[in-house]
Amino acid sequence: MLFLIGSAKRFAQVKPGRNNMATRSGEFDLIARHFAPIAQKSKAALSLLDDAALLSPPEGHEIVITVDALVSNVHFRSQDDPGDIARKVMRVNLSDLAAMGAHPLGVLLTSGYNRDLSEDWIATFADGLGQDCEAFDAPLLGGDTVGTPGPTFFSLTAIGAVPAGRAMRRDAAKPGDVIAVTGTLGDGALGLKVLQDSLGGLTEEDSAYLSSRYWLPQPRLKTGIKCAVGTGRYAAMDISDGLAGDCRKICSASGVGMIFDQERIPLSQAAMNAVQGDPALWASVLGGGDDYELLICADHADIKALGDDVTIIGEVTDQVEQVDLIGADKKIAELAKGGFDHF
Amino acid sequence: MLFLIGSAKRFAQVKPGRNNMATRSGEFDLIARHFAPIAQKSKAALSLLDDAALLSPPEGHEIVITVDALVSNVHFRSQDDPGDIARKVMRVNLSDLAAMGAHPLGVLLTSGYNRDLSEDWIATFADGLGQDCEAFDAPLLGGDTVGTPGPTFFSLTAIGAVPAGRAMRRDAAKPGDVIAVTGTLGDGALGLKVLQDSLGGLTEEDSAYLSSRYWLPQPRLKTGIKCAVGTGRYAAMDISDGLAGDCRKICSASGVGMIFDQERIPLSQAAMNAVQGDPALWASVLGGGDDYELLICADHADIKALGDDVTIIGEVTDQVEQVDLIGADKKIAELAKGGFDHF
Repeated sequence: MLFLIGSAKRFAQVKPGRNNMATRSGEFDLIARHFAPIAQKSKAALSLLDDAALLSPPEGHEIVITVDALVSNVHFRSQDDPGDIARKVMRVNLSDLAAMGAHPLGVLLTSGYNRDLSEDWIATFADGLGQDCEAFDAPLLGGDTVGTPGPTFFSLTAIGAVPAGRAMRRDAAKPGDVIAVTGTLGDGALGLKVLQDSLGGLTEEDSAYLSSRYWLPQPRLKTGIKCAVGTGRYAAMDISDGLAGDCRKICSASGVGMIFDQERIPLSQAAMNAVQGDPALWASVLGGGDDYELLICADHADIKALGDDVTIIGEVTDQVEQVDLIGADKKIAELAKGGFDHF
Repeated sequence: MLFLIGSAKRFAQVKPGRNNMATRSGEFDLIARHFAPIAQKSKAALSLLDDAALLSPPEGHEIVITVDALVSNVHFRSQDDPGDIARKVMRVNLSDLAAMGAHPLGVLLTSGYNRDLSEDWIATFADGLGQDCEAFDAPLLGGDTVGTPGPTFFSLTAIGAVPAGRAMRRDAAKPGDVIAVTGTLGDGALGLKVLQDSLGGLTEEDSAYLSSRYWLPQPRLKTGIKCAVGTGRYAAMDISDGLAGDCRKICSASGVGMIFDQERIPLSQAAMNAVQGDPALWASVLGGGDDYELLICADHADIKALGDDVTIIGEVTDQVEQVDLIGADKKIAELAKGGFDHF
C-alpha cells in the first residue's frame, strides 16, 4: 500500500481525542497534504496511486537496499526537532548506500505516529524529509502510515544502484592496504554528550557544531560513488557504532588486522578543543558512534585517487582480528573491542 | 545496517529486567540465532555482513517496491500467534507485488520488539517468517531490529521485478472491460468478525476457515505474473480495504465507472453459509477488507486467458466514478463509497 492507512484491518480502533490524528481531517488527507507533494516529484511513485512503486534500475547496475528505524524515547526524544529526526532517518540509510558505493534511487517511509502528535509536528517532519529528498536526489517513492498508541517510530528503506560487480564489500581488505576515513571522527558521540548535557566547558559555537553533527551526519555518497565507478579494489563500511568496534567487522569479514595512528585521526576543531580540555574524551572519539563516516581500505594508490575526500589513519595487517592503536605517546596498545568501555 | 541494533545511538538505554530482551544473551545474538539462518539462504543478503543488501535485477525488468507495517494492539493482538503475524506482514506486502504483476526478489524486515517480549515469541515469529520466505521464494535480505518501550511493530519492505513496461496499473481500465477477481471475497472481513467474537451461528469448521483466511491471505502472485508476462492490457489492484471502496481507486485513476453483479461474486462455502444465515453480512463481504484478492479489468479475451484463476463479477462503464451493484433482486443500486458503513 502506498500511504494507505488501515490496509490491514485494525483490532483496536483509533480513539478520538483533542487535536490528535483521529480528529484531524482524516489520516489519508494528512498524508495527501504533507507527503504526497514530496512523492509527486518522482515518476516512480506513480503519484501514490498504485499498490507499489516502480523503478527502472540503470542498465548494468545492481540494486542496493537497506532499512533503518528510529523510535521515540530510544533514538530521539519527544522534544527534538521533527525536521532533524526526518533528516537523521534519511541520512543513516543513505550512509549505508554510500558505504556500498551506490547512488540513491529513492526511499520508502513507514511512519507510526503516536495518536497525540500534533499536525504541526508531522508537517515539520515532512518538510525535513522533503529537504533531504531534494538535497540527496533520493525521491520519496511511497510508504505506509499507521497510528500507534505507543511511541512514534519511523522505518526508512533506501534503494540505490551501483555498477554491477563494483559494490564495496567488507570482505575485500588485504594486509598492506592503507586505511582511510572520510570527514572527522568523534563529532557524533561528542554531540550526543552535548545533547545529554554531559559535556561542559565548550564554547556555544563548538557545542552547536557537535550537536549538529550528531543530528545531521553527512552521508558520503560522493566518495562512495567515486570508489565504485573507479577501477580500484575498495573494502568499506560506514562507522555508525564507533571506529573501535566497527573496524572489527572488516577485520572479521576479510580475515585481517588493523593498526591505527591516533595522531592521524582527523578531528574537527570543536572535537579537538574538547579532547584538549579533557583527553579522556578520546574514548568517545574512538569508541562512540553516530559519525556515519566511511572507513575505506585499499592499496595506497587507490586511496590517493580519492584525493582530499579522505584521511589515512592506519594500515591493514595480517594479524587476524588484532586491532592496535599507536597512541599519542607512540606506544602501541590494543584498541579494545568494546570501544570506550575498555579504552 | 543489517540487523544491527543501536546503529543510531540511544538517548534512553535498554533497561535490564526479568526474561526480557536486555537480559537475554544480547540482541545481536538474538538476531543471529533466529533471523540470520533465514537470511543466509539468500546470496543477496551477503550473510548480513555488509551495510546493505545487493540484488541483481533480472535483465529487461523493472523493480517494484512496497512497504506495509503492522502494530500490536492496532493490527494484531498480543495473544495472536506470532507465526501468523509474521506471515500476515509478508503476505500483505507480497499481495502488492502480485497486484503489479511482479515476482518477489526478497524482503527486508524492521522489527521493533517490546522489551518484555519473550524469546519464544520472537523465535515463533522468525519461524513463520522463514516458512513464508521459502513458500513464496522471497528471501530475507536484511533489516533492522530495535527495542521499544511501546507496542511491538513490524515494517516489511518487499522488492519484486516485473518485465519492463508490463506492470499492472490502476489507470489502465477502459469502458467495456470485464472485471474479474481472484479467489473468494468476504472471507477476511468475516474472519475478523469470528476473531472478534461478533459472528455466531457458524460451524467450528467454517469459523476456523474464515479466521485462517483473515490471518493467511493468499498473495495472488501466480495470477499477477500471468498478466504481466502475457500480451494483454490489464488494470489491477489488490482488494485490501473491501471491494466497494477499493474499486473506486481504479475508477478514479482510469476515469471510468463499474457495475457489479452480486450473484456472480465468488464466496467460499463458509462465507456462503454465513450470508445465508444472515443476509446483512453481505455488507461485510462487499465493504469489509483483508481479502487481498486481485481485482482485474481487461478485455474479455484477456480475462479468459487467466482461466480458472479468476471469476468475472462485472463490467467497466463510461459513467465516471459511478459504481453500481445488481442485487440479488435484480435491481440496480449504487454501491456506496463507504462500503459497509452505508450499505
